[in-house]
Formats: sequence, C-alpha cells, structure tokens
Amino acid sequence: MKQAVHTLQIATRGKGLYEFTSTITEWMRHQEIQTGLLTVFCRHTSASLLIQENADPTVQTDLKAYFDRIAPDNGPYEHDYEGADDMPAHLKTALTQVQLSIPVVNGRLALGTWQGVYLFEHRVRPHRREIVLHLIGE
Amino acid sequence: MKQAVHTLQIATRGKGLYEFTSTITEWMRHQEIQTGLLTVFCRHTSASLLIQENADPTVQTDLKAYFDRIAPDNGPYEHDYEGADDMPAHLKTALTQVQLSIPVVNGRLALGTWQGVYLFEHRVRPHRREIVLHLIGE
Amino acid sequence: MKQAVHTLQIATRGKGLYEFTSTITEWMRHQEIQTGLLTVFCRHTSASLLIQENADPTVQTDLKAYFDRIAPDNGPYEHDYEGADDMPAHLKTALTQVQLSIPVVNGRLALGTWQGVYLFEHRVRPHRREIVLHLIGE
Repeated sequence: MKQAVHTLQIATRGKGLYEFTSTITEWMRHQEIQTGLLTVFCRHTSASLLIQENADPTVQTDLKAYFDRIAPDNGPYEHDYEGADDMPAHLKTALTQVQLSIPVVNGRLALGTWQGVYLFEHRVRPHRREIVLHLIGE
Repeated sequence: MKQAVHTLQIATRGKGLYEFTSTITEWMRHQEIQTGLLTVFCRHTSASLLIQENADPTVQTDLKAYFDRIAPDNGPYEHDYEGADDMPAHLKTALTQVQLSIPVVNGRLALGTWQGVYLFEHRVRPHRREIVLHLIGE
Repeated sequence: MKQAVHTLQIATRGKGLYEFTSTITEWMRHQEIQTGLLTVFCRHTSASLLIQENADPTVQTDLKAYFDRIAPDNGPYEHDYEGADDMPAHLKTALTQVQLSIPVVNGRLALGTWQGVYLFEHRVRPHRREIVLHLIGE
C-alpha cells in the first residue's frame, strides 16, 4: 500500500465553474495506483468543489445563476466588510463541499460518463486557489 | 492493509429516497475488515447520496418535497432540452453530495442509531443507478 | 501503513457552530502520522459538519441565520411530532454534510489558513453529539 500527495493551483477569473479533471488524471498517471482512493481537498472558505455534468455548458451557467439566486450578493448579512460577494461565497461553500473522494478502479477514477471535477469559484475578483490531492492504494 | 471495490446497481422508480444500507453491510460481511474506511460513490449528476433518518418515513416525504420547493421543475433554466426535471436534478445533486465515507469500527459501519444510507433519485423516469463501494482497512 | 479510530463527544447548547479543530489536532499529535487521511464522521441526522472561516465570528452568525431562513422552523412539514426544529434540522443536515476527509501532510491537517472544522448543531435543546475520527497513513 502506498500514498502520494500533491498541491495544485487553479487561477480563477470570477464566479463560475472551472473543470480540472484532466489535471488530476495527468498527475495520477505517474502514481501507478491500480486500486485506491483519491481525495480532493479545497483549502478555502469562499470556493468549493463540485462533481457535475461536463457535456453541456449551460448546466454550468444554470448552476452559477441558481446559487446566486439562493445566496444573493447584498443579502441581510452582518459579515460584509470583505465585499458584497464574500458572505454569499461562504454560504455557497457550505451548501456544496470542500472535499471529494473518488475510488480508483483499474487505474482510473471511477467517475461516471458525464461527471467532471470542478472548482466552484464564488468570488468576483481573480483568485489563486489551492487544491490538495491525496491518493492511497496499490 | 487490504482493499476491496464493488459496483452495485439500484433501480429507481421516480423521485425520492431509496435506502441501501443493508446492501452495503451485506457486501462488507464478506470482506472481513475490522477497522477501516468505506467510501460510497454515485456515478451520476442527477442522483445523489444522503445519510438520513431511517425511522419515520415522513422525513423522506418532507426531504423530497423540500428539494422540489427550493429547486423546482420549470424554473428559469437554460438547460432544459433533457426535460423539466433535468436541471433541477443537477441542482439537487450539487446541494447534497455524490460521495460519502464512513469509518468501520469493530467490523461495523460507524453509523448512528438513526442513520441510513440513501440514494436520492432526482429524475421522474425510472433509472438504473451505479454506486461504487471502496473499502480499505484490516 | 497504520490506522487509528477515536470517538469524541461535543456538548451543544442550541443552534449554531461549535469549532473542534483543536480537539482533532490534539488527538492526532499522539498518532504520529506524517502522511495520511483523516475522516471526521457525525453520527446524527439533525447536526452536521462544516469547514468554515474561523476568523470573524459574524460569519457563524450569518451561516446560522441563513440556514434558518432557507429551512425555517414551522415550515409545511409532515414530520413535526419531535418539535418544530426537528424536520428543518434534517434538511440543514442534508444541505451540508455528515462527513469530511482532510489530507494529512507533513504531520499536519492540510487545512487552509482560515479553515476551521465545526459541528453545526441544528436543534434548539442541548445535545451530546458523537463524532468518529478515522485516520490512516504512516
């Protein structure tokens, strides 16, 4: 049984979904794990992770618009000195997740046909987001 | 330390929660793991996983009705050509999760007294859903 | 490769967030794992887990108020005999999560600078909540 860890950075340019499935699979190719578990961890409280459909881009548009409707900027928030988009960013992170674990079977992530791994950026301004990958298996 | 993986299928008949705790524990009985971690992964973007109360069935009725209220069919979605229940299915999946990991202690899942593992189907028509189980431990 | 499991209890005094990051790191100090994966599991259906900002306490006030707005007490719920705050507690648990896994890198949790691990209590009356920790690594 062996383990590997890796930190990757994703540059974001405003609210929305940024797919990084291929960055993960590229790194995994060098780890030579046939059976195992990959954990993806987002080190932030105003950006989160999502596994979603990677076929039709309107799914991503709708996801972004939906979360803006249920956690709007300029809501009745006490925490507002970091900007109108900051507290809603924390709420959207709470409603989604900062960690995903995906089984590895026959050397590949066990993702479904339409599943992609996304960083969900909730802030307006550009950010550099850190994602930690942890892989265990053999 | 050892690992085991298994894929199971769940036939759904419309929106709602389908418990499969016993399917998991039945499979685990043959793996002889005393201490470990079980990961449950749903390979879909319009069905998700939930650990919820398995005592009173009205909890499940209320959960289904609540998610229909906050992510209604026929909302202002761009992505609609797969049916009125498709985009809300993606939203409900984003609001819940497609992966759960549960510690194994003394050969049993460390679930609480009232916790059951459910597939949460978000589509109206019948589907065959694939769930991957990954177990590591000894 | 080794594993460790531990159950901890958190006494809650009504709705809100209770940080227990230091309880986790204190336990981990004795396990001597340099690289690994820590899983935190909440054995309840009316309390959940959240990784959130631990700098400004108004973030916690806003989180609590927000979840009370989107899943209010006295909503149109069938399941109500355990109290007006019970069904919304299940909904809030479904909207957040009962399990978190965090990579361990160089002997430390790979949390970001502002991330803390919280129990999110959704019931009004005091409760004793059980959290199971599972650690694997070496």
